[in-house]
Amino acid sequence: MLKKAVAELIGTFWLTFGGCGSAVLAAAVFIQEGTSPINIGIGLVGVSLAFGLTVLTMAFAIGHISGCHLNPAVTVGLVVGKRFPATGAIPYILAQVAGSVLGAFLLFAIVSGKSGFTGLEDRAGVFATNGFGDFSPGKYSLVACLTAEVVLTAVFLFVILGATDRRAPAGLAPIAIGLGLTLIHLIGIPVTNLSVNPARSTGPALVTALNGAVTPITQLWLFWAAPILGAAAGAFLYQFVADEPSVPVK
Amino acid sequence: MLKKAVAELIGTFWLTFGGCGSAVLAAAVFIQEGTSPINIGIGLVGVSLAFGLTVLTMAFAIGHISGCHLNPAVTVGLVVGKRFPATGAIPYILAQVAGSVLGAFLLFAIVSGKSGFTGLEDRAGVFATNGFGDFSPGKYSLVACLTAEVVLTAVFLFVILGATDRRAPAGLAPIAIGLGLTLIHLIGIPVTNLSVNPARSTGPALVTALNGAVTPITQLWLFWAAPILGAAAGAFLYQFVADEPSVPVK
Amino acid sequence: MLKKAVAELIGTFWLTFGGCGSAVLAAAVFIQEGTSPINIGIGLVGVSLAFGLTVLTMAFAIGHISGCHLNPAVTVGLVVGKRFPATGAIPYILAQVAGSVLGAFLLFAIVSGKSGFTGLEDRAGVFATNGFGDFSPGKYSLVACLTAEVVLTAVFLFVILGATDRRAPAGLAPIAIGLGLTLIHLIGIPVTNLSVNPARSTGPALVTALNGAVTPITQLWLFWAAPILGAAAGAFLYQFVADEPSVPVK
Amino acid sequence: MLKKAVAELIGTFWLTFGGCGSAVLAAAVFIQEGTSPINIGIGLVGVSLAFGLTVLTMAFAIGHISGCHLNPAVTVGLVVGKRFPATGAIPYILAQVAGSVLGAFLLFAIVSGKSGFTGLEDRAGVFATNGFGDFSPGKYSLVACLTAEVVLTAVFLFVILGATDRRAPAGLAPIAIGLGLTLIHLIGIPVTNLSVNPARSTGPALVTALNGAVTPITQLWLFWAAPILGAAAGAFLYQFVADEPSVPVK
Repeated sequence: MLKKAVAELIGTFWLTFGGCGSAVLAAAVFIQEGTSPINIGIGLVGVSLAFGLTVLTMAFAIGHISGCHLNPAVTVGLVVGKRFPATGAIPYILAQVAGSVLGAFLLFAIVSGKSGFTGLEDRAGVFATNGFGDFSPGKYSLVACLTAEVVLTAVFLFVILGATDRRAPAGLAPIAIGLGLTLIHLIGIPVTNLSVNPARSTGPALVTALNGAVTPITQLWLFWAAPILGAAAGAFLYQFVADEPSVPVK
Repeated sequence: MLKKAVAELIGTFWLTFGGCGSAVLAAAVFIQEGTSPINIGIGLVGVSLAFGLTVLTMAFAIGHISGCHLNPAVTVGLVVGKRFPATGAIPYILAQVAGSVLGAFLLFAIVSGKSGFTGLEDRAGVFATNGFGDFSPGKYSLVACLTAEVVLTAVFLFVILGATDRRAPAGLAPIAIGLGLTLIHLIGIPVTNLSVNPARSTGPALVTALNGAVTPITQLWLFWAAPILGAAAGAFLYQFVADEPSVPVK
Repeated sequence: MLKKAVAELIGTFWLTFGGCGSAVLAAAVFIQEGTSPINIGIGLVGVSLAFGLTVLTMAFAIGHISGCHLNPAVTVGLVVGKRFPATGAIPYILAQVAGSVLGAFLLFAIVSGKSGFTGLEDRAGVFATNGFGDFSPGKYSLVACLTAEVVLTAVFLFVILGATDRRAPAGLAPIAIGLGLTLIHLIGIPVTNLSVNPARSTGPALVTALNGAVTPITQLWLFWAAPILGAAAGAFLYQFVADEPSVPVK
Repeated sequence: MLKKAVAELIGTFWLTFGGCGSAVLAAAVFIQEGTSPINIGIGLVGVSLAFGLTVLTMAFAIGHISGCHLNPAVTVGLVVGKRFPATGAIPYILAQVAGSVLGAFLLFAIVSGKSGFTGLEDRAGVFATNGFGDFSPGKYSLVACLTAEVVLTAVFLFVILGATDRRAPAGLAPIAIGLGLTLIHLIGIPVTNLSVNPARSTGPALVTALNGAVTPITQLWLFWAAPILGAAAGAFLYQFVADEPSVPVK
């Protein structure tokens, strides 16, 4: 279990450092053309791609070691879907949170090394934090944000369980799941800055809180509750349509 | 059949909620830089990617359950191409339309939770609706829109039949078909906002009509007729070049 | 041979209609935000993706029928590399050119159905035409354009021969080759509008010449000579590094 | 060994010519719309995609010939991870540097053929050079740049070793590794212009130094030291989590 937990820690480090890092470092990058600043940054399409590729790359790298959950909601969904033993959930989730916190702190170390850096801005979504209401990038209500996170995590788990079904094409689940996370970000970043992953939300919330920004750490509960609720719902849904009982874990 | 129909419903829900959702929520997202608003939204390239990835992810998730049509034109094309029994067409198509309507309503619930939302705008392509003439995003004529939808759906079916041919590389059809839908959107969004899928057109048309926007629901017939016509043509074309008769359904 | 030639015709139709179509219809699409026009079009990254995906999708669809060359330079390179019999080259190339011409004419029919269309503009790269010097989008010299087309086609053939080598991972060549064409477009569109494919150059050159635009049809020779020269060079290079003789065609 | 070294030379030529070429030729491309210049160039998302696709395409093309390292840090990491014999490292690294230099010179030949070209600009990141401090595109400090290059190369090697582990899905490592390099660029271009590859850094540094630009060739040491350090760390890390000793090279 130690090596599996370390793999989960490294993988979730990568998801947070890489996904949030692409948003914080590269989303908007300006060059001057005549009198106008021109944005050549990666924008939300690049950030969406980056989050998905953190999972795609790690699923190929550690799928055969830990299963590559990188996400407490995924771990819970796989327990509900009878693909992962409940006894493994606690160490996995602890490792995921530790990896995310480590990734967020390392990212902050790089960000604060930029010439002229004077601290994090006070705005919704700063340092890739997730939030609702006033902390939603597009100022979506609590209900809208809750709905988005529940539905998107539910489909995410549905896709994970389907793509790893033994009847699905072998070996291609990392592509389906990674690009699935890209798709989810293409839809939902303006709503909550997109979580579907309690660990991913925790690292940036902690870093911003410790660095004096007005940040939505008081909203973190939503990004634990909604993804886990959605994950359980998605797992039940897949079990229903899958037309045969999952093979129980022995 | 029930579980297959539920799978088609969930999949077409995802196609409409995710594809149209990416367009409605994330296509244009502005940040302020000096005096100019800068767009960091996903643009048409992100929307194209999103539509394709809804199909790619679902094809991996439910391909082994229902075949993952998610589209009445695909169902008809597969019947014409002798890959799917005609008796299954009606329940599949009903499930697809139901999924699209559900996706569109849920998307509207999120959209209307944005601070300051006062209703849908009156403009071509609002809420990701498909249209021609005045309701075409780029104001293309009925004939141009009809041509585009017929040709694009024909090639879509040609690719679906080819990529699922037993001589094609096994297991990779979800990638070919999903990215094929991305490609089709990269070409045609400015023409009709891109349908090639009667179910996908129906949900947003219904939601906009029920919410008082001047919407092209009177144009919905084109987005049933053209994709189905194109799909049948594409299936015939593939059968011709495939150099051997398809194995008949038993 | 008839069915193979028809498959090549359809595939090259798709490459020209879809690749050039994405550029002509969707590269720049403006919405109004305050006083500034904002571009949400697919830009050169979307056009590059579109060209590559035409090949990726068709390689999955007709790879098992015709080999999916879609390009006279590829056909010549495969003859040089001893992967395709010389006797097949003429019918394949004729079909490819016919497909491209058909694709370009159909695309023009859609373009001319846009409200307010009054004819093609007089500018470098109009209707996705390839050109050098004054007809190069970025005004690159003949020598620079020739160099770019030769080198890019050489590597393209090198990748095609490598990815279809029997020692390469089975079934994945469509991904390598399609995304390879995307990469080539990401590099070279500003130089020549990117050909590496004499058939793809021929359709748009013909359509623009017949529609009164000042077009580079007199420059078409370069986009036959350079890709074919590059393809032959790439095939020789791959044969050298491949460390064993190719199996001769019987 | 000769043919393997030539394959590495061609592959690293492609990485530098194609990756840096996409940045230099296509990152920012302007069209006029009303009074404003509009950027339709590929931006950092296109450049990131291009770098990754150079590796993806070559991994399919020459993976079965040389293993497709294309990067001295990868070669060192594979030696540390006991996947490649130390005796092969010197010829591989020499070939990689030669390929990069060749690619950079050929790219300069094309760039200098642009109408109105009068020489390279004096700015951070010119001709896709890597740098820190004043030569970092976003003016990140030496420590921040060192950290980014070490961490990103470490995870790159971790992914390479994981995706080529015999327990990982067969044949898909080129996708994991190529898209992994895309991800790394999505994160880090604003920091160092992104190297993780000493060979890739050397070609552009040499070309700019020989062409009179104020360039960071005095900073080249960092882009040898940091990637190699990171690669060794990543290889150790993967060996730890992999839960079983690697099969030693015989």
